[in-house]
Amino acid sequence: VIWIAVDALGGDLAPGPIVAGAVAAARHFDLGVVLVGPRDRIAAELARVHHDPDRVRLVEASDVIGMAEAPAAALKRKSRASIRVAADVVARGEAAALFSAGHTGATVMAAHAAFGMIDGVDRPALAAALPTRKRPSVLLDVGATVECRPAHLLQFAAMGSVYARVSFGISTPRVGLLSIGEEESKGNELTREAHQLLKAADARGEGWDFVGNIEARDVYSGDADVIVCDGFTGNIALKVSEGLIETASDVIARELGHAAGGRPSRRPASAGRTLGVARALRRFRSRMDYAEYGGAPLLGVAGIAIVGHGRSSARAVRNAVAMAHRFAGSAFIERVAREIALSTVPHQ
Amino acid sequence: VIWIAVDALGGDLAPGPIVAGAVAAARHFDLGVVLVGPRDRIAAELARVHHDPDRVRLVEASDVIGMAEAPAAALKRKSRASIRVAADVVARGEAAALFSAGHTGATVMAAHAAFGMIDGVDRPALAAALPTRKRPSVLLDVGATVECRPAHLLQFAAMGSVYARVSFGISTPRVGLLSIGEEESKGNELTREAHQLLKAADARGEGWDFVGNIEARDVYSGDADVIVCDGFTGNIALKVSEGLIETASDVIARELGHAAGGRPSRRPASAGRTLGVARALRRFRSRMDYAEYGGAPLLGVAGIAIVGHGRSSARAVRNAVAMAHRFAGSAFIERVAREIALSTVPHQ
Repeated sequence: VIWIAVDALGGDLAPGPIVAGAVAAARHFDLGVVLVGPRDRIAAELARVHHDPDRVRLVEASDVIGMAEAPAAALKRKSRASIRVAADVVARGEAAALFSAGHTGATVMAAHAAFGMIDGVDRPALAAALPTRKRPSVLLDVGATVECRPAHLLQFAAMGSVYARVSFGISTPRVGLLSIGEEESKGNELTREAHQLLKAADARGEGWDFVGNIEARDVYSGDADVIVCDGFTGNIALKVSEGLIETASDVIARELGHAAGGRPSRRPASAGRTLGVARALRRFRSRMDYAEYGGAPLLGVAGIAIVGHGRSSARAVRNAVAMAHRFAGSAFIERVAREIALSTVPHQ
Repeated sequence: VIWIAVDALGGDLAPGPIVAGAVAAARHFDLGVVLVGPRDRIAAELARVHHDPDRVRLVEASDVIGMAEAPAAALKRKSRASIRVAADVVARGEAAALFSAGHTGATVMAAHAAFGMIDGVDRPALAAALPTRKRPSVLLDVGATVECRPAHLLQFAAMGSVYARVSFGISTPRVGLLSIGEEESKGNELTREAHQLLKAADARGEGWDFVGNIEARDVYSGDADVIVCDGFTGNIALKVSEGLIETASDVIARELGHAAGGRPSRRPASAGRTLGVARALRRFRSRMDYAEYGGAPLLGVAGIAIVGHGRSSARAVRNAVAMAHRFAGSAFIERVAREIALSTVPHQ
């Protein structure tokens, strides 16, 4: 059985939904979970949920990195922080992968410190799966590496392609570069240089096809399977999407609610309509939420780490732990390492 | 009567909706329009729409900058390009403001060349009005200045504040800095330095309040009236929003359509529900479309220029021309110049 280390204190609602989601994953999939956090609080949560004791282990960790803390300093100061202890559990070989819904920056740093980097990869990248009209697209980096050099985006292309292959079965992913115009001359210094690197790599023949610049308005069109960008830009694109869907849902629900309340006799179907819209929007929102796909894998570090949304529900945690299990079972790190080693990605 | 110069060839559907929208504005507001383009084609369009001949003038321009052309080279080569001729009409004082729905980069360059910059402003910025839960927020720059220095963002704050005052009646706008975390230490080099400049300017007392970093997920929350960022980031945020709403509308409409078609007897309200959703989404989409607010003003150049969406409808053109008229009537350029001169914005 494959064991997954779970940071039980990471997340806005931890440890409740974290523990519930982790043991649900252990019930439904062939895996065990190492719950890392304060023994007594975890035991209390475990008492509330149906679970198989043979599939659950506890590792004590009393501290946590707060969402507002500067991660480097906090990690240094708190040697018993749950994310540090959980990453060490994986580094010692007691679990095959790490999951945390806590402070993203702290998870990136803890994973980096505990696992090191894959040979040939200079910077880590968080990869989010976005819903499109067709199958999901992988957007990376969405926040691990804020300032990027062009070669980093080329490495992201290779890593994102392995993710698209393993998770979505796309044998030769189409890779696009997020920019502000389709022509290669459009964009900023980073994207113009990265465009040339990606074009040259494509000409040499990688395991993916470069389809050129992808404009932001086409991120959800499904024109590329993997879209690369620096972590600042990717985070903006992802978060603006989350905020927009939330606002649109609220505004539309309110509008329809008012319409229903205001003129009931002339709009007999309004109540049903409002319900229908609310449901449809909720479904689309859940597809938006990358936690529903099982969290965002942190690519580039030499170990499997899945990052969950801070507000992860038990269901999202279950999916993320299942994803960690799938990655561990498919020798994900070895595949990324091979792709990077075989590729002609220049080292920097 | 105030005259507005309209680039009749600018826009994916030009000249049809451009001419129709411009003369509609001249009918509904106290303004006249100078239609710049091929006389015969414009005359043919005019023959189709109700208009007051005293409020419409024609200026010949035979050429156009194509959407895929590199604007600098194309503008140099095509001295009779409609956008160049239209900008010159304003520069000669024959019109008070310019409107174009054509190539955005070409409009920015033509306006810059014809008008020059406002004293103390180094770079132009396109300002988009975004719908929020409350009143609209102004996001700038959304594409005029791709690479920015921190001082540029400070100038954008001053200019965006005048826009928020004139268009939305907000006397002391709350200014936010688009970044990837609320803490001032979060973000990239540009946002960290800009944060310090904005904080210092706020402490000196400008005509606006700095509310700190705004995360992308709060762009549509209405927590700031003016949100500043570089033109690459702003363009990504705006365009990803457009693409997302389009995809969400399609996916939801399709889902509900299938539901209605599949089980008609068990879902008697489905057809009405689908219609209701389609209508609600269309309404929200139209609020998203910045053209509905009257286009995006190009701030920083020493003349009024309003940029429309490439796919502007006649209605969007009418609103944009009305906006140009409102800006001209409110001495907009003088107000921006005064704000910049009074402010302690450092020159670079």
